[in-house]
Amino acid sequence: MPELRKDIVKDAWVIIATEQALNPHDFPINKNGVHIGGSSLSCPFCAGNEALTTPEIAAVRNNNSRPNTPGWTVRVVSSKYSAFKLEGELSINDSEFYSTCNGLGQQEVIIGSPEHEVEFHNLPVDRIELVYRMLQQRYRALSADSRVKYIQIYKNKGLFAGASQEHSHTQLLALPMPPDNQQGLLTYFEQKKQCLLCVLMESEREENKRLVFESEYFFLFCPFASRFSYETWIIPKRHTEHFAEITEPEIKDLALTIKKFFNVMITLLNDPAYNIVINTAPVNVPYKEGHHWWLEINPRFLVRNGLEISSGYYINPVAPELAAALLREKINKE
Amino acid sequence: MPELRKDIVKDAWVIIATEQALNPHDFPINKNGVHIGGSSLSCPFCAGNEALTTPEIAAVRNNNSRPNTPGWTVRVVSSKYSAFKLEGELSINDSEFYSTCNGLGQQEVIIGSPEHEVEFHNLPVDRIELVYRMLQQRYRALSADSRVKYIQIYKNKGLFAGASQEHSHTQLLALPMPPDNQQGLLTYFEQKKQCLLCVLMESEREENKRLVFESEYFFLFCPFASRFSYETWIIPKRHTEHFAEITEPEIKDLALTIKKFFNVMITLLNDPAYNIVINTAPVNVPYKEGHHWWLEINPRFLVRNGLEISSGYYINPVAPELAAALLREKINKE
Repeated sequence: MPELRKDIVKDAWVIIATEQALNPHDFPINKNGVHIGGSSLSCPFCAGNEALTTPEIAAVRNNNSRPNTPGWTVRVVSSKYSAFKLEGELSINDSEFYSTCNGLGQQEVIIGSPEHEVEFHNLPVDRIELVYRMLQQRYRALSADSRVKYIQIYKNKGLFAGASQEHSHTQLLALPMPPDNQQGLLTYFEQKKQCLLCVLMESEREENKRLVFESEYFFLFCPFASRFSYETWIIPKRHTEHFAEITEPEIKDLALTIKKFFNVMITLLNDPAYNIVINTAPVNVPYKEGHHWWLEINPRFLVRNGLEISSGYYINPVAPELAAALLREKINKE
Repeated sequence: MPELRKDIVKDAWVIIATEQALNPHDFPINKNGVHIGGSSLSCPFCAGNEALTTPEIAAVRNNNSRPNTPGWTVRVVSSKYSAFKLEGELSINDSEFYSTCNGLGQQEVIIGSPEHEVEFHNLPVDRIELVYRMLQQRYRALSADSRVKYIQIYKNKGLFAGASQEHSHTQLLALPMPPDNQQGLLTYFEQKKQCLLCVLMESEREENKRLVFESEYFFLFCPFASRFSYETWIIPKRHTEHFAEITEPEIKDLALTIKKFFNVMITLLNDPAYNIVINTAPVNVPYKEGHHWWLEINPRFLVRNGLEISSGYYINPVAPELAAALLREKINKE
């Protein structure tokens, strides 16, 4: 099992594989680039290679196909390289200098297409819908286990987004403790008795400087303190705390909106690496008001440098006002 | 001037270039890799190309050479691409959702070698000394300006460490506010009336699981919650808050120790990208006890992925105990 360890100086958590170590020469990155795994012949995520993955957890399949065989459109397996296990009890240890938490959790891979070459942003809208419906299903299943405290959904596309497999996929990690990165939502609610994101959407709509697009159910804008150039947040207009609360009409609208955004972004930004991540409320913890889930699409143009890793600051060479203006202009012509 | 902007949700600061925007097609990263600037012909950091940089701020030179001409061993110029300026007054603005701070500061480049091909880790020990002596000199000069609150020293070596120039160099950024990443030192002192790093060195020496090496004046170990595989901290044994307090014998020992460490690390880890960063006490702020400066050498094998950017956690596939064992074994044979 990996261990979550706390850095006492920087007050930051690190997930560390304590029982294994990559051989220094086996890292996926070398001086010239990252080795991204998998031609379609040996790719564990391709139809026909189902035996190369762990057993199927869930899938969207043809009626007459059997699990762990071809015939699927979306397939979920547990991550082969993850050391997280949903076994035993949570164990938190604090000593004078060292805090740890055992790697109680589950890491799953949601393969959104049986074909090797099809990128997520090139999927038809109804196939994007299937992925988000599956994520909702897995979110619900995992949050039923009271040992799970947070479910992080994320996608790495490309070398500079941290991808280690070429075949498009989304990941989900059920964690034994919620990350401490949405404190602003709770503080704002405590002080104002209002949801920060709900109020922020109103303000951004009025100011109209960073707004990119509004669909029926979603609000797209480049946040004021964008960490990444062209970073875009997609917020449900309806106040909902958990991603799993998304409704069927909202899923359809989200898929359509994401597709529309990607049609613009991929061309405008010259097919960049990107992450899609979902921020949501923690599960199985004492209730605190103020959460509101949202999705981020973060293009990745720069590698985090020494200034950023030491100061903790991000550096972004593109003002979000300029990014939003460019994206807005194009998306309104779509 | 760039702007420091605060993310109200995540409580994180971002340095944003508000008055300029990279053209989407001009980013240094494309799908296949990062374009690292500069052959030795057009490289602004090479001897003979002094006219391609901003005017020289300081240098170590032959007695009979003039500024901005060849004849130097170490040369300091202000960064051509930085928008930080040490002009005017600090301006901090807080509105309901948005906090900003103007980019009052100075970014300098310390070129440690006139030759294009010589990496920092290949410099002879006496040339490494010159670099740290120059950093001390620039640290002192910049901290004399009361508008400067923190001086971040950092080096990016290679593509995956965020370097944008091939020719080896170290950077220094004088900032208008100290980063909030050493809170653990202050909290520990408040509670225990002892310096955390001083006590931690004793404990790590006794435990002897993550210790890499001890020189006369410095203590090298892989920290318990290492964010990067083979991350190594080099701490002065003498309790000193600011890097600028380093003495002449300590500079000599630091250069020797860094050289010794790199002799092992570069071979063991297959010539990786790396950052060298210095953490130090803030300057020109009300005094708080508990700071102790230290230097980090962080090899960079992985690109930060979606899980890491969303949760804020780092992921490290090599336990620091295993990293330290490997490094210790080799360094003791040096």
